[in-house]
Amino acid sequence: MKIGIADTNFARYDMARAAIKELKRGCSAEIIRYTVPGVKDLPVAAKILIEERGCCLVMALGMPGPKPIDKTCAHEASTGLIMAQLMTNTHIIEVFVHEDEADSEGELASLAERRTREHAENAIKLLYYPERLTREAGTGQREGFEDAGRVGD
Amino acid sequence: MKIGIADTNFARYDMARAAIKELKRGCSAEIIRYTVPGVKDLPVAAKILIEERGCCLVMALGMPGPKPIDKTCAHEASTGLIMAQLMTNTHIIEVFVHEDEADSEGELASLAERRTREHAENAIKLLYYPERLTREAGTGQREGFEDAGRVGD
Amino acid sequence: MKIGIADTNFARYDMARAAIKELKRGCSAEIIRYTVPGVKDLPVAAKILIEERGCCLVMALGMPGPKPIDKTCAHEASTGLIMAQLMTNTHIIEVFVHEDEADSEGELASLAERRTREHAENAIKLLYYPERLTREAGTGQREGFEDAGRVGD
Amino acid sequence: MKIGIADTNFARYDMARAAIKELKRGCSAEIIRYTVPGVKDLPVAAKILIEERGCCLVMALGMPGPKPIDKTCAHEASTGLIMAQLMTNTHIIEVFVHEDEADSEGELASLAERRTREHAENAIKLLYYPERLTREAGTGQREGFEDAGRVGD
Amino acid sequence: MKIGIADTNFARYDMARAAIKELKRGCSAEIIRYTVPGVKDLPVAAKILIEERGCCLVMALGMPGPKPIDKTCAHEASTGLIMAQLMTNTHIIEVFVHEDEADSEGELASLAERRTREHAENAIKLLYYPERLTREAGTGQREGFEDAGRVGD
Repeated sequence: MKIGIADTNFARYDMARAAIKELKRGCSAEIIRYTVPGVKDLPVAAKILIEERGCCLVMALGMPGPKPIDKTCAHEASTGLIMAQLMTNTHIIEVFVHEDEADSEGELASLAERRTREHAENAIKLLYYPERLTREAGTGQREGFEDAGRVGD
Repeated sequence: MKIGIADTNFARYDMARAAIKELKRGCSAEIIRYTVPGVKDLPVAAKILIEERGCCLVMALGMPGPKPIDKTCAHEASTGLIMAQLMTNTHIIEVFVHEDEADSEGELASLAERRTREHAENAIKLLYYPERLTREAGTGQREGFEDAGRVGD
Repeated sequence: MKIGIADTNFARYDMARAAIKELKRGCSAEIIRYTVPGVKDLPVAAKILIEERGCCLVMALGMPGPKPIDKTCAHEASTGLIMAQLMTNTHIIEVFVHEDEADSEGELASLAERRTREHAENAIKLLYYPERLTREAGTGQREGFEDAGRVGD
Repeated sequence: MKIGIADTNFARYDMARAAIKELKRGCSAEIIRYTVPGVKDLPVAAKILIEERGCCLVMALGMPGPKPIDKTCAHEASTGLIMAQLMTNTHIIEVFVHEDEADSEGELASLAERRTREHAENAIKLLYYPERLTREAGTGQREGFEDAGRVGD
Repeated sequence: MKIGIADTNFARYDMARAAIKELKRGCSAEIIRYTVPGVKDLPVAAKILIEERGCCLVMALGMPGPKPIDKTCAHEASTGLIMAQLMTNTHIIEVFVHEDEADSEGELASLAERRTREHAENAIKLLYYPERLTREAGTGQREGFEDAGRVGD
């Protein structure tokens, strides 16, 4: 079993290190890492990891900047990541941390670390423990932040 | 006959439970459930349910958050769900309840329950009673809210 | 020759009735109707009408609501309808009437009736009389409203 | 060698006439014209011209209106035209003139005439004289307006 | 090994010259240049360079204008470039310099020169030295501007 990690040198935090640590803690899959310049390069990298490197799931890690153009880039990348999944019938877990989600550099680093780790847990559940995701369904999970929780009932 | 249900652990209400209850009430199809983290993971999940699990219709259930980034995610997910349908010639009924459609948590829960159930009815009509949909054509149906009704005539 | 009509029960006017009346007045094609819940279900319905029911043209009829989310849905549906055309090399005539294009319910009904009929005429021209479209090229045709007319010359 | 021209009866100027005149002046390709109602019908028309009528390049001519909905239509059409090119490995030169680019009807007509002609020249260069395009690379060409010119150097 | 360069005559700076200089400095790949009118013509040009001219990577160089319509064009082009990559499993490095990123023509020229060169370095790393990209992962690289640097740690 191989898990791919596509990350960028545009990001200001080594999200892949966080992902790898968490994946290694939770499963014994082989990890293949593929670094590209920016988030718009992630879709094809993820597709190559799936189709040419045999990965059965990819984590796509990016940190879009705070400007409007960065938001547009992130949107384009996300659209591409969804398309890549549809072309391969394989999950690509998008982990994007927007620079303006945090108020300081330290907070940005913590958020990136935590969100990446929590999404690595999601990756493991998707591959090994899908019933755990179903148990959490509708519970308002929020990666990197406090969970929002259930409403009603 | 198999019907797929793709839902998320991001949602704050167990929409799948509502869907399953309604589907079981109205037909005898086997139901296959597939829970993913968020709405952007729904398109590939729906496509897998169709192509690898034999579902002839999928309900895609999600609850996008209230922030602009959540709206963008929902838009990306919707675009992917339409693409997945075109790639499979199979209906995927999108049931999204936006957190900011309701004024309180209780109202949000009721809306999610009701909209999901009414879309489950739509799913049943699409599969078993298409003539009922045609009879309702142009009557301003609104899932989760009061119907808007006809104009003219 | 078969012409498909995909319509919705979300719409507040029976646009399909208008389309069928006009199509029957202008040609002898067999008409196949397929009603779905909302505009986002139209792309796959249209593609099914083309690929599985043998239609050589489809009219996709919808009435998006006035809220921003409705505008987004309409945009997603339109994108899907264009993709469906590219995947089938077949025309899908989109006839969308936005609720906020009219000032009253009566006006909305008239607009829906008129625009649908004028697009049914376009459908007939595309299939039977393409030279008539070329004769009208550049003349500022507006379905449902007064034509805008030529500029220059 | 065949060149396709897809145009609309929504446009308020006979852009195809301008294109045909310029193409005939610059090359001996056979010209096939295909008129559709609006810009959203252009992508499939262009693809049909390429795949079923043997065109090795298509000019897609349209004149989007000034309202926000018209801008959205133009965006959807452009996205479809790019997709059609990717599906066929063939250039489709988009020539859109937005009604609100001009201050008067006369100016709109002149702009449509000039932009169409200058894009017809581009079409000829793409097919017959690619080295001329390379010679112009980075020179700030603007079809229909004064060129913007080089910066730097 | 062949590297493609797709550029435009709309751009106001000869970005291809900068790219070629940098590529020749860093590798011995054959370079194939393909100039098109504008950024929306880049996706199909890049795909042709890959599929019909044997390029194993393409740089797509463009300089979108400052108006809202130019931003929309750039967005459409970017979406197409990502799609072209997914259809070919090949990297297309997008190098777009927006006219309004710079305060003067001189600054615009410098930015275009520098960003293009730094992306040419990225292209070389992707093809020949992928481990260097991984070494830079998470370091906040910014092509054409000062790097943003790491956060945390």
